[in-house]
Amino acid sequence: MSHNLDKIIENISIDCVIFGFEKNELEILLIKRGIDPFTGQWALPGGFILKEEELDNAAKRILEETTGVENIFLEQVAAFGELHRYPDRRVITIGYFALISPENYSLQPGIDTSDAKWVKFDNLPILPFDHNEIVKKALKKLQAKVRNKPIGFELLPEKFTLTQLQLLYEKILGKKLDKRNFRKKILKMEILKKLDEKDKTTHGRAAYLYQFDCNAYQNFREMGFAFDL
Amino acid sequence: MSHNLDKIIENISIDCVIFGFEKNELEILLIKRGIDPFTGQWALPGGFILKEEELDNAAKRILEETTGVENIFLEQVAAFGELHRYPDRRVITIGYFALISPENYSLQPGIDTSDAKWVKFDNLPILPFDHNEIVKKALKKLQAKVRNKPIGFELLPEKFTLTQLQLLYEKILGKKLDKRNFRKKILKMEILKKLDEKDKTTHGRAAYLYQFDCNAYQNFREMGFAFDL
Repeated sequence: MSHNLDKIIENISIDCVIFGFEKNELEILLIKRGIDPFTGQWALPGGFILKEEELDNAAKRILEETTGVENIFLEQVAAFGELHRYPDRRVITIGYFALISPENYSLQPGIDTSDAKWVKFDNLPILPFDHNEIVKKALKKLQAKVRNKPIGFELLPEKFTLTQLQLLYEKILGKKLDKRNFRKKILKMEILKKLDEKDKTTHGRAAYLYQFDCNAYQNFREMGFAFDL
Repeated sequence: MSHNLDKIIENISIDCVIFGFEKNELEILLIKRGIDPFTGQWALPGGFILKEEELDNAAKRILEETTGVENIFLEQVAAFGELHRYPDRRVITIGYFALISPENYSLQPGIDTSDAKWVKFDNLPILPFDHNEIVKKALKKLQAKVRNKPIGFELLPEKFTLTQLQLLYEKILGKKLDKRNFRKKILKMEILKKLDEKDKTTHGRAAYLYQFDCNAYQNFREMGFAFDL
């Protein structure tokens, strides 16, 4: 059921780009629209801001109401205001994004939404409105983020191999990385603890397992390290 | 003179954070408000989006109309929508920023603006609305930008010393940088050409002059180099 029309701001909406990382694949969370425009089409979870609501809170609420995904930290991407992005009137939308581990959340479509699912990023369909453009910009933000800050803490199992970490980066950056170079750079950050333990699930020579060093990791997140003057 | 009220979107505005770099000082462009709210107070150049106007064009137009500064490339900072940021109704604003060289522009306050001036960043007064917060976030964007991409091309004289370049970075990052470390990092980027010419204006031992290598610089701007995987 939609929110009361006199409670919302009719020309400012929010759209959420939720990236998932699961089984070494980058995914995106889509909902099936339950209302016009574009009823029945798969699109980004979105909705209108309430008159008495802060932007960040609106993003959280809308994501939860449309997909069931709650308690996640969303960051703003940008405002999108192309003249005819919305079919019948001028609506400016504020994009938000997050990167989560899908297996930790159960999907429960709700308000204005008839279904919700994760799709592989590589198989993303053409979405209504300017949603593909919003996804593109959100991906750029995510890429800038992984270039500047170590990520993956929440997305990988507690103990992981450097190959798993490299795969995560490769999926986000959308390109193959040189193994030797990647390892050199990631180890230079001094945020990983090498364990005296090997991964027994892989074939061939077993790889060492690593763990994030929480304290070092937190410090990095705060200071950033790229071209660190 | 204000724009016709039925031509603007009344609840979405734009505010511009224009950083200047001049005589080794970081500055901000302020206007004196000619209309309510806060008539007579110094604030960021801002205004409302027209119903038939793209966001980026609105930012350019508003900056030009209020300060006379035209033809500059503005980047979006974020949308700011705190509930009571505007005194008498809900207005969400979209922040934009740019870094320019003040001496290349003449100020001509116009619509809704009675004056315009550059103020030293270190002497920035308390501004109305949430303008100080917008400036803060814009500075963070600028800092992220200089950490990821070489800047300064448009802000320094054609030939400059490494000391001048370091001063620019120090003013933007708001901290002293280690001279040896800075030089090592900046030269490693391979975007500077060392000239066979020395700066004769300084006391003591004359320093070598450098020039940006335009081609290398453009490539860097496009690919980014921070934690370059």
